[in-house]
Amino acid sequence: MNTIDLNCDLGESFGVYQLGHDEEILNEVTSVNVACGFHAGDPSVMRKTVQLALTKNVRIGAHPGLHDLVGFGRRNMNISPREAYDIVVYQIGALNGFLQAEGGKMQHVKPHGALYNMAAKDKRLSEAIAEAVYKVNPELILYGLSGSELIRAGKAIGLRTASEVFADRTYQQDGTLTPRTEENALIEDDREAVSQVIRMVKEGKVLSQQGVDVPIQANTICIHGDGAHALTFARYVRSSLESSGIAVKAICG
Amino acid sequence: MNTIDLNCDLGESFGVYQLGHDEEILNEVTSVNVACGFHAGDPSVMRKTVQLALTKNVRIGAHPGLHDLVGFGRRNMNISPREAYDIVVYQIGALNGFLQAEGGKMQHVKPHGALYNMAAKDKRLSEAIAEAVYKVNPELILYGLSGSELIRAGKAIGLRTASEVFADRTYQQDGTLTPRTEENALIEDDREAVSQVIRMVKEGKVLSQQGVDVPIQANTICIHGDGAHALTFARYVRSSLESSGIAVKAICG
Amino acid sequence: MNTIDLNCDLGESFGVYQLGHDEEILNEVTSVNVACGFHAGDPSVMRKTVQLALTKNVRIGAHPGLHDLVGFGRRNMNISPREAYDIVVYQIGALNGFLQAEGGKMQHVKPHGALYNMAAKDKRLSEAIAEAVYKVNPELILYGLSGSELIRAGKAIGLRTASEVFADRTYQQDGTLTPRTEENALIEDDREAVSQVIRMVKEGKVLSQQGVDVPIQANTICIHGDGAHALTFARYVRSSLESSGIAVKAICG
Amino acid sequence: MNTIDLNCDLGESFGVYQLGHDEEILNEVTSVNVACGFHAGDPSVMRKTVQLALTKNVRIGAHPGLHDLVGFGRRNMNISPREAYDIVVYQIGALNGFLQAEGGKMQHVKPHGALYNMAAKDKRLSEAIAEAVYKVNPELILYGLSGSELIRAGKAIGLRTASEVFADRTYQQDGTLTPRTEENALIEDDREAVSQVIRMVKEGKVLSQQGVDVPIQANTICIHGDGAHALTFARYVRSSLESSGIAVKAICG
Repeated sequence: MNTIDLNCDLGESFGVYQLGHDEEILNEVTSVNVACGFHAGDPSVMRKTVQLALTKNVRIGAHPGLHDLVGFGRRNMNISPREAYDIVVYQIGALNGFLQAEGGKMQHVKPHGALYNMAAKDKRLSEAIAEAVYKVNPELILYGLSGSELIRAGKAIGLRTASEVFADRTYQQDGTLTPRTEENALIEDDREAVSQVIRMVKEGKVLSQQGVDVPIQANTICIHGDGAHALTFARYVRSSLESSGIAVKAICG
Repeated sequence: MNTIDLNCDLGESFGVYQLGHDEEILNEVTSVNVACGFHAGDPSVMRKTVQLALTKNVRIGAHPGLHDLVGFGRRNMNISPREAYDIVVYQIGALNGFLQAEGGKMQHVKPHGALYNMAAKDKRLSEAIAEAVYKVNPELILYGLSGSELIRAGKAIGLRTASEVFADRTYQQDGTLTPRTEENALIEDDREAVSQVIRMVKEGKVLSQQGVDVPIQANTICIHGDGAHALTFARYVRSSLESSGIAVKAICG
Repeated sequence: MNTIDLNCDLGESFGVYQLGHDEEILNEVTSVNVACGFHAGDPSVMRKTVQLALTKNVRIGAHPGLHDLVGFGRRNMNISPREAYDIVVYQIGALNGFLQAEGGKMQHVKPHGALYNMAAKDKRLSEAIAEAVYKVNPELILYGLSGSELIRAGKAIGLRTASEVFADRTYQQDGTLTPRTEENALIEDDREAVSQVIRMVKEGKVLSQQGVDVPIQANTICIHGDGAHALTFARYVRSSLESSGIAVKAICG
Repeated sequence: MNTIDLNCDLGESFGVYQLGHDEEILNEVTSVNVACGFHAGDPSVMRKTVQLALTKNVRIGAHPGLHDLVGFGRRNMNISPREAYDIVVYQIGALNGFLQAEGGKMQHVKPHGALYNMAAKDKRLSEAIAEAVYKVNPELILYGLSGSELIRAGKAIGLRTASEVFADRTYQQDGTLTPRTEENALIEDDREAVSQVIRMVKEGKVLSQQGVDVPIQANTICIHGDGAHALTFARYVRSSLESSGIAVKAICG
């Protein structure tokens, strides 16, 4: 039977600033990526987020980002591979402090935003991130864009990896995501989005914008936790997957 | 035979900014407190500092501070005990990331600057800090001002503690340090400073500014690593302790 | 005829984080205090806030705070008067950049949160803040708690001042606000709050918690812009003031 | 008679961290670029730097940078032109606060590090920066790399500009600097460096790495204020310029 993990970003509030519907989205996903204070989150938010995630049956991962709070870690930054290594070690460690304090265990690491996107295409950056994860704890699973340099680097160093796909994004002939700057980057029709994701899980294929099928590996689906439509869509994705015979469960189930 | 630990703050550089004589002071001390990025230090400095400390035979501890880089963590801030707990867990975790990556082990935690000073007198703040340390890892040693609330809180929760004394500071009749704002707070004569510290270690006593002896516990001596005179004084303290028959060695020797 | 200014804090969003109902509250007030990036706000938020405020007929002031984004500038911090001076000059200047670029003019300065509260009782801190405002531009009006050290320091250096009162807070016999930690600090009944504020404006008196009338000067009333009830209450305060014959208008009307 | 301005970066210390030889270098230059707190500098450093610069006969400019303290503003960051506009307005304003308080006047703006380098080649970024400078104060002079997009954008909007050249860098056939990543990017021989700069000022030409002369405009020379050799070299450049009949004086002399 086919299985799939549903992951979402969590703990993106900061100080007095609230973001996302953390409690509600937790009921729909099987793993969460917790912000570690560089692009979002702060120590108090991290503690509460870990406590909340532990009360639900979800796997917890670190979501390290660039040190750019005002840009929410979404602006590409020309950091060296060594700097990427250092900020990933730091942020995994910081989140791990709260997991140790609460008696939990980290399952995975998924880079955030610009760090995720830059790593997808940059071999040296990906190798540095994979090395950071591996050296802190070789049992951690590395989440990355399906078909990306990050997944390759993770496998190369000996990490277990999880190839991530997107329900609401279209794909190119070479297996990459259609850039957000282009038209048709987003799938706005919910049913179409769900059909695409079911096919990725069951057949390992996605129909590219060029009209040809592309092979794609899908271990985990990225679910958004903010925006008005997020919760409704998350529930719809989950129920559709289940009713088409796909088991929604964590990778370390 | 009497033994004493010598500790100093390490890894207080930040970005392009250099601070301290980390390499040189490492030869004189037996344990180091590594800045964790809130009041000083950054992920790259932390990695290099951990690597450097591991090449010497010194114990490594976390040196969590207030989130006040421009004030170097020296300005008192009215944080809640819960916030103190959260920033201590975060910073211990972050440093621990580098220790795990480098194959090292954390020995202790010593709060920095204003956090150290506020905790010395504030029971609830001390309890929160001690709880943070204990919950992350009950094997960690809590360094605090000798006779302080922090030492009491550490013992109360079941942590091993290290009572810290200062070679170059004078003491009051109630066992507290003479505030820096007062005259005679500092001992400027090196021989006098060393005599005081030897007596604290050997006899467990210090002559207060009021002219009466005060009992004091000394497990570790704070050594400064910056300033022109720091290295000379550190070497003088160490050799004087050794020649008076005191073994200079780490607590977890 | 009695007149009163209604002021509220504005531009407290940061990066992706939204806070407050800036557009709506602008219709109810006559002056706004714009966050300057230390406790809230960022350069882009500041530009948009200044542009928005200029489209309405409101006076614009700087709202400098402590450098504590995660604590929203609400945690007391032991800064020196000199540091207070420096952060106030910096933040007034930064906001002024946007006013110059947009062709606007700054009317006033109101310290935020812990800086406001600490200054209310601390003569030296207040003198430093007043000096900062005066030296940048002696035409600026200094907003401060009615009866506070800040108002005294402003007058002493030669600044025009605006004594601020609160509609929804109770007062003590000595003219100070009842601390929030005490019961009865807040007035929860809207009509009672409005009656109090009308009396402060018309009679210059407030009934203290000790049951005796206290003289109080009221030039401006603090209106909150966040919280579900904020807009409703703001409208109610404004219409009640107007229907009791008080002109609601900016100080530099 | 030929004239040239010598500029250097100033006020790059931060908190307890000291950087540069500000007092000494001030004797050698005619204009200074003061860090504004985003990549270096803090409000207290800015005040002291402005006070210091005003005691010498030098022109003062703002040196706005990317919001990247740990990277010293040297890492390219994918900010939008609008974000560039906003951070430049903010930082000019902030420095201007100290100039107003001290009775000084800002002469110019020179973007720092990665912002300077990115702008040199990016038309839209340069237009945004030039617009920011112009809207805050159209009298300000915009310093930029000679022949760059920034100089073009400055002229296009109606700003006075100053074309900057480097004594210790080699040039390419197209008039750009040889990238630091390439060999021969730096001129290590002081006499050679000085000869190049004198020729740029007197003849408006520089011999490129490809062996052909390239026309270049030189209004100001960048002088470094940190590093052991900096002061010696600065003095050598200045005296050589003067003895070859070039007047070293500020643009707004």
